Amino acid sequence: MAAPGQNLAVVVRRAGDLRLENRPVPEPGPNEVLLRMHSVGICGSDVHYWQHGRIGDFVMKDPMVLGHEASGTVVKVGSGVTDLKPGDRVAIEPGVPREMDEFCKTGRYNLSPTIFFCATPPDNGNLCRYYKHSANYCYKLPDNVTFEEGALIEPLSVGIHACKRAGVTLGSKVFVSGSGPIGLVNVLVAKMMGAAAVVITDLSASRLQKAKEVGADFTIQVKNETPKEVAFKVESLLGCMPEITVECTGVEACIQAGIYATRSGGTLVLVGLGPEMVTVPIVNAAVREVDIRGIFRYCNTWPVAIALLASKRINVKPLVTHRFPLEKALEAFETTKRGEGVKVMLKCDPTDHSP
Amino acid sequence: MAAPGQNLAVVVRRAGDLRLENRPVPEPGPNEVLLRMHSVGICGSDVHYWQHGRIGDFVMKDPMVLGHEASGTVVKVGSGVTDLKPGDRVAIEPGVPREMDEFCKTGRYNLSPTIFFCATPPDNGNLCRYYKHSANYCYKLPDNVTFEEGALIEPLSVGIHACKRAGVTLGSKVFVSGSGPIGLVNVLVAKMMGAAAVVITDLSASRLQKAKEVGADFTIQVKNETPKEVAFKVESLLGCMPEITVECTGVEACIQAGIYATRSGGTLVLVGLGPEMVTVPIVNAAVREVDIRGIFRYCNTWPVAIALLASKRINVKPLVTHRFPLEKALEAFETTKRGEGVKVMLKCDPTDHSP
Amino acid sequence: MAAPGQNLAVVVRRAGDLRLENRPVPEPGPNEVLLRMHSVGICGSDVHYWQHGRIGDFVMKDPMVLGHEASGTVVKVGSGVTDLKPGDRVAIEPGVPREMDEFCKTGRYNLSPTIFFCATPPDNGNLCRYYKHSANYCYKLPDNVTFEEGALIEPLSVGIHACKRAGVTLGSKVFVSGSGPIGLVNVLVAKMMGAAAVVITDLSASRLQKAKEVGADFTIQVKNETPKEVAFKVESLLGCMPEITVECTGVEACIQAGIYATRSGGTLVLVGLGPEMVTVPIVNAAVREVDIRGIFRYCNTWPVAIALLASKRINVKPLVTHRFPLEKALEAFETTKRGEGVKVMLKCDPTDHSP
Amino acid sequence: MAAPGQNLAVVVRRAGDLRLENRPVPEPGPNEVLLRMHSVGICGSDVHYWQHGRIGDFVMKDPMVLGHEASGTVVKVGSGVTDLKPGDRVAIEPGVPREMDEFCKTGRYNLSPTIFFCATPPDNGNLCRYYKHSANYCYKLPDNVTFEEGALIEPLSVGIHACKRAGVTLGSKVFVSGSGPIGLVNVLVAKMMGAAAVVITDLSASRLQKAKEVGADFTIQVKNETPKEVAFKVESLLGCMPEITVECTGVEACIQAGIYATRSGGTLVLVGLGPEMVTVPIVNAAVREVDIRGIFRYCNTWPVAIALLASKRINVKPLVTHRFPLEKALEAFETTKRGEGVKVMLKCDPTDHSP
Repeated sequence: MAAPGQNLAVVVRRAGDLRLENRPVPEPGPNEVLLRMHSVGICGSDVHYWQHGRIGDFVMKDPMVLGHEASGTVVKVGSGVTDLKPGDRVAIEPGVPREMDEFCKTGRYNLSPTIFFCATPPDNGNLCRYYKHSANYCYKLPDNVTFEEGALIEPLSVGIHACKRAGVTLGSKVFVSGSGPIGLVNVLVAKMMGAAAVVITDLSASRLQKAKEVGADFTIQVKNETPKEVAFKVESLLGCMPEITVECTGVEACIQAGIYATRSGGTLVLVGLGPEMVTVPIVNAAVREVDIRGIFRYCNTWPVAIALLASKRINVKPLVTHRFPLEKALEAFETTKRGEGVKVMLKCDPTDHSP
Repeated sequence: MAAPGQNLAVVVRRAGDLRLENRPVPEPGPNEVLLRMHSVGICGSDVHYWQHGRIGDFVMKDPMVLGHEASGTVVKVGSGVTDLKPGDRVAIEPGVPREMDEFCKTGRYNLSPTIFFCATPPDNGNLCRYYKHSANYCYKLPDNVTFEEGALIEPLSVGIHACKRAGVTLGSKVFVSGSGPIGLVNVLVAKMMGAAAVVITDLSASRLQKAKEVGADFTIQVKNETPKEVAFKVESLLGCMPEITVECTGVEACIQAGIYATRSGGTLVLVGLGPEMVTVPIVNAAVREVDIRGIFRYCNTWPVAIALLASKRINVKPLVTHRFPLEKALEAFETTKRGEGVKVMLKCDPTDHSP
Repeated sequence: MAAPGQNLAVVVRRAGDLRLENRPVPEPGPNEVLLRMHSVGICGSDVHYWQHGRIGDFVMKDPMVLGHEASGTVVKVGSGVTDLKPGDRVAIEPGVPREMDEFCKTGRYNLSPTIFFCATPPDNGNLCRYYKHSANYCYKLPDNVTFEEGALIEPLSVGIHACKRAGVTLGSKVFVSGSGPIGLVNVLVAKMMGAAAVVITDLSASRLQKAKEVGADFTIQVKNETPKEVAFKVESLLGCMPEITVECTGVEACIQAGIYATRSGGTLVLVGLGPEMVTVPIVNAAVREVDIRGIFRYCNTWPVAIALLASKRINVKPLVTHRFPLEKALEAFETTKRGEGVKVMLKCDPTDHSP
Repeated sequence: MAAPGQNLAVVVRRAGDLRLENRPVPEPGPNEVLLRMHSVGICGSDVHYWQHGRIGDFVMKDPMVLGHEASGTVVKVGSGVTDLKPGDRVAIEPGVPREMDEFCKTGRYNLSPTIFFCATPPDNGNLCRYYKHSANYCYKLPDNVTFEEGALIEPLSVGIHACKRAGVTLGSKVFVSGSGPIGLVNVLVAKMMGAAAVVITDLSASRLQKAKEVGADFTIQVKNETPKEVAFKVESLLGCMPEITVECTGVEACIQAGIYATRSGGTLVLVGLGPEMVTVPIVNAAVREVDIRGIFRYCNTWPVAIALLASKRINVKPLVTHRFPLEKALEAFETTKRGEGVKVMLKCDPTDHSP
């Protein structure tokens, strides 16, 4: 184990100021475990905090460690921990409810207003060497699941939660709007849940190519189409209107297209977030009983994702396009900021070179 | 039975031109029944067709008989009808699917695009002396349910469908926005489904008074409040945010208030329809997982409503504030147009003066 | 506050041996509150532990304090408690999960195998003067809800959970089998959820009379009828087969009647528990898609029940037929054992004579 | 087209008497189509009618044409048919509701008591040269789906309906009891819906081998194990108890094993049918909230199955192990009766040798 203070961490000190710092190695509480971090993915929100020091109402007041797509190895356990032991490889669910409120009691703990969440102010993330976390939200990885797959459970969870809220089921026709990392995981998950056909849109041909690789059946490269024109193309390619649309851009015109495109009685799930106020054809949605549902992060997805990864039925490895050691975190963040590749992975454990 | 041609009917010939006409008495097909109409309520949509000749994409091209909130007595049955016989008193569900399409097969026949619907162009309504209808969509009234209660099943159905889509259940706190006839039936139905408290808003003190009478626990007379201020008042009165909001006005500011007011994880149901494009705080709804669901008419509500009316557990009688004989239909429509009372009922059977 | 040791408690020492003992006043932990108990109802399971020292696989190994239908007043709060303060009147949910396992995370904490539960071995109950409990599972009572109503939330919760699992909704026809306390709360709750008609069976005319008082529409006094004959009577009285049957006896013939009686596509909920192995007409249920669902206690019911009690929309007071001071607990238990009345309430606070 | 009377059909005249007969070519009604049959699978129920003249309450009174797993080509359409034309290749859903009753209106038309169903007395099946059917229940096959795949939609539908009723979803662990044709389609469908792992049991090693081929992750060859021992083996192989059990044998001990094996809060679906009365550990199921749900045939599955087959995401072809021309139907039935292979297919169109 590291000497106290030997805990290299990626810290945003204030908007625009990203640094590597040495921080103390934390001590786990009774129901916590101390983890030696292994693989941590960079998320768009990490870059956003670095650039702007805030996302919506979440405003940084103090320096904050980034990182919430993570996996690592247990090195120490609190006195009350019975299910984990040093040496266990785990994936980390970044949200941990602080109290058993109505949302937790009803199984929607992601909506608990007092939840702890890695790298959301004022809570620190886990892009560092050593990190402590609630044992109940660390999930053991089977031997045949890599640390990077473990870290990718976080973005995968967004897709799982979105597709579950959407009600994707056997034979569904699905329209995914936007082919960034979140669009891609939604393609992956929708297919896994039995979708018969998935069509995806994006401005970028290369991103659409990636979508094809992970399983999209049809792609549409959008240019200047109106929302209704996009909807018409979606229907033409699928041979019918999709029951489900998963909107991953947050762009007003895309939300509009999502409403027009969705079949009567279907569901539009809003995953991408854009401007607070958006103008939408609400009557069109209402009289066709197209439900509009948002998602906030996820809940109850880690066990599902681990079961799928262990069964080798889902392949998330193509999502990782870049790797950097923790020491080169600034370079990694610049890469992500430039929009290169899909997922940039930081390797935090210099003693373990396994993926 | 009447002589052929003795079928007085309330007809909109074109926008602005409402008349009483004599039309032929129709002949029921094999699976139809001929009805002597008894009580028919006037709906806001009837007045709208009279005034404008259209509602949204539904445009009158030919003269149209109005009326779709109706009950009557079977006078003749088609050759294939087994469940009804002359003399049976029935309530009429105005929507009858024309084909067994995917929506019908899955129990959401209201979404069938080719459905017949009384007094929606090009289909005639039943505000007349004699009317034929599919026997499967005529529901026998028990002896202890009046014709007027039978006719009121139609507006009641809007409340039933809305509250079911909203997921009102035991202990729900409900915010109903707008205290017109549809707001009132939502109050009635929400309470019947076990809602613990209902708060209702309106501009009009007299309409709020009516809401109190049918069971609203709290009322808010809105004036110049912002949507967030309305939401705050709703929460203050209920002691918590409502899980469910039923929006019955279609006004943009009210839809906004509905989003702000609804508890995380809850549902906003859009019943009132206003302008096609509406600006809404979509991020606020999405990240709190507040679902936005519309309704299109209703399905599977007549048996529910009849069971409730028969059990004497719901009292819709206070909704009827005016009655006119069919011959005075123009006067009745003028009354409705002036916004007087709640529900104006036309009495079509001069031989039967029962309610 | 009482001197240490001044904590009179009703204890089963071993099967057949029920005593009043003085026990130490407990000290609340950081997230707990100490309560001065006020009203505690006696449940059939309390009597069963007294008589047999066990229920199924739950076997007493040590003396156990009885009681789990309870309300009281906060007298001391742990260091981490923020929502409660001394003087608050609360109802106590007796089940408190010990760990955040998969069942808790998905909102079904009643199924958590390590849950703490009052008066289920090895956990002590709250039929005593002073009792400590997790603050998160103590629910503040509004001023207009009495302590006894607070204590009755526990049996009421069985009805709420059963009717929710049954899917009782607006217009449901419901068959409740067995008119003991649990049958009665199911009648109350089913009606509150919008059931149009409830029919109830029992051997005892006086119990059926009580069911009438709490809202049953029809009663059937069963004698030697076969299960199919009971089912036929249920259908005859309702005018149709019920969509929902709530079986509260656990008797084999009653479960059989419940299957035969339930309409195709409906649900039979098993609340009463009898012999482990039961012979049932499983093909009849299966090919008519009648779901068979059990319940284990309840979850997420206290907030619902308090909202209903506060709204004065449900009246549980007729359920309390006997009251005894804590000192006369043995007499109270003998009364319950003889099957007298419906609910026997013990009054634990000699300084407060409010109901 | 054939001359009248040139309609070779496989007929059970009475129990034990199976024949090929020439019957008249039927004339389609206004909403019907006449089909030249192509591929028809033999089902266990066909053999059962041949052997016993009845299944449960369905008793043959007249000779009956067998066959209900079928596909063919439209040769003539009724006057009201708009969606199909001669030359269209279609799969046939054998159940056609005769009236729009409560079950049809709510999307559960399979429960309609008056439904027409191929080869269930008194309704004739479609194992013949020419057959007429409701156009609404004939589904066009895309060019890339074969007639045999079209015929296999019927058994596949049993799996789809069972897995939907079971709630199979992403990450589910599933136990399928019995590895006959219906067990196999449940394996196929469960995996398609995202099941992470499926374990299957059978007495026969060769049937388990087939299950492996269609996707089962684990197999258990049962011998003399008790139900609890089977449940223990299932848990051991999966690493946890399955949330879902699909019971396809109808054997009492297997139903018992299904209850013991299923995780608390999970679902046991009964697909196989055995003796009417079965002894089950009902308390074990009830207190762990394991739901027991049956299925009756299926509804709304053909569009789902066709979308999946068209997407090439599901491979049912390995299920067909034998083929016979219609003229050799008796030989084909003897083969099925001996339990050889999985699915025996009859080829009814001598002019078309495509699969």
